[in-house]
Amino acid sequence: MSPSGKAFLVGAGPGDPELLTIKAARVLRSADVVLHDELVGQEILRLLPASARLINVGKRCGKRSTPQEEINRLLVQNALLGLVVVRLKGGDPFIFGRGGEELEALRQAGIEVEIVPGVTAALGAAASVQVPLTHRNLSSTLVLLTGSSRYCSPLAGWPDRLPSNATLVVYMPGHELAGLQTRLVDAGVSPEMPCAIISGATSESEHVDVTTVSHLARSGSLGGPRLVVIGEVVRLADRKNLREQFREFSIPEDHAQPDVVPGESEE
Amino acid sequence: MSPSGKAFLVGAGPGDPELLTIKAARVLRSADVVLHDELVGQEILRLLPASARLINVGKRCGKRSTPQEEINRLLVQNALLGLVVVRLKGGDPFIFGRGGEELEALRQAGIEVEIVPGVTAALGAAASVQVPLTHRNLSSTLVLLTGSSRYCSPLAGWPDRLPSNATLVVYMPGHELAGLQTRLVDAGVSPEMPCAIISGATSESEHVDVTTVSHLARSGSLGGPRLVVIGEVVRLADRKNLREQFREFSIPEDHAQPDVVPGESEE
Repeated sequence: MSPSGKAFLVGAGPGDPELLTIKAARVLRSADVVLHDELVGQEILRLLPASARLINVGKRCGKRSTPQEEINRLLVQNALLGLVVVRLKGGDPFIFGRGGEELEALRQAGIEVEIVPGVTAALGAAASVQVPLTHRNLSSTLVLLTGSSRYCSPLAGWPDRLPSNATLVVYMPGHELAGLQTRLVDAGVSPEMPCAIISGATSESEHVDVTTVSHLARSGSLGGPRLVVIGEVVRLADRKNLREQFREFSIPEDHAQPDVVPGESEE
Repeated sequence: MSPSGKAFLVGAGPGDPELLTIKAARVLRSADVVLHDELVGQEILRLLPASARLINVGKRCGKRSTPQEEINRLLVQNALLGLVVVRLKGGDPFIFGRGGEELEALRQAGIEVEIVPGVTAALGAAASVQVPLTHRNLSSTLVLLTGSSRYCSPLAGWPDRLPSNATLVVYMPGHELAGLQTRLVDAGVSPEMPCAIISGATSESEHVDVTTVSHLARSGSLGGPRLVVIGEVVRLADRKNLREQFREFSIPEDHAQPDVVPGESEE
């Protein structure tokens, strides 16, 4: 046995503290040190033992954040002291976080690592808005993408061509959705394709707007973490929970005019 | 208030009972009737109250299963009796199950529905094998597909073209992987691309083989539910936990010969 501690990369789920897994809750209760994202809520952090040291390494737009190298160093250093170190990340640790890099740093230092998966934001949001991400008659492919260019190296960029008949979910779409609209259309997505902009999914501040790709650029700037679901399945969203931004959305035959003014809600 | 009951579509996670969410466990404890898949383990079913009626509607290859229309009818009928009905599905209810169809049937009958998301098999397997599904330098896109042609209607078929620089995960790849190999290559995936065949992910019977796309057709038939992860990120898998099928896998420059014989493990 190594005298060193152990590191866990743990998914905290999409927001609702009840969407934490039983395993994640158990690991949190055993933690000596926890490095957490801004996205992880207070209710989840309350599960930690009083003795645990809490370090907020959050990286949200507009705020100063801890550099990745410093996060890696903190993980390694604390584990080498023989402590149980938890890296607690919103959603799942391997979806658009830098869990892979943290894993490599820990392995290089010879530290035992365990990954605890979580409910990723796309699945949490889909459940909450009642949009089945795959559907036998509409979509047999789900594509998860990120709008953050900081996440992608030139080698791992945005796909040139997106499959049709797929549901797309864009994480970190940015404040300004004009760029996303252009990228989607350039990759072959129909401008008439329905999409849902979901902010604060599964939390009390959840907010959903339904529109089409051609209107993404004109969607308002919502607060909080958000993602965009694009695909025919968006038509199945629970209509009680959403706000339709544009009158023409529910008339698929009527090709959206770029100069039309937003209408009021249909419901 | 309606006199009718309520239906929950609940994700049971990838296999390990500890990967159930806290919310799923709470909902299960309140259930009057549970319709479950074959994939849901006994340890999870033990959470149910003794009074709950358990109906196995499992649909695994080679076994007779309950037709979808009958599952929908059972859900509706029990909810109309005023009962709390849980449809418990492996993984997440909206990923390659027929949760969307169940949701529509329940809505049409005017029954209140709630979706409880779960850790989908791809995320469970990736955590277990320590393959980061996205990685800043390797893959900024994750594509979930199904190998089951019964799942896809002609409208929702396999994509013509898959994005490069993406990680692909194929659910229900079938017993015979030759068809998958052909479809991947036809959609533009390199024959040298590494892939991991994972069966029984997160369960005690988990088994992992690592090979390349060009060798998929010759991979053995493993028991249990399995999925295939394809992409450069497979190179980051935890080498302790896997079996490498073909010697040439670790030499990316050496293009695999279709007639080469399987070598022994590298480790």
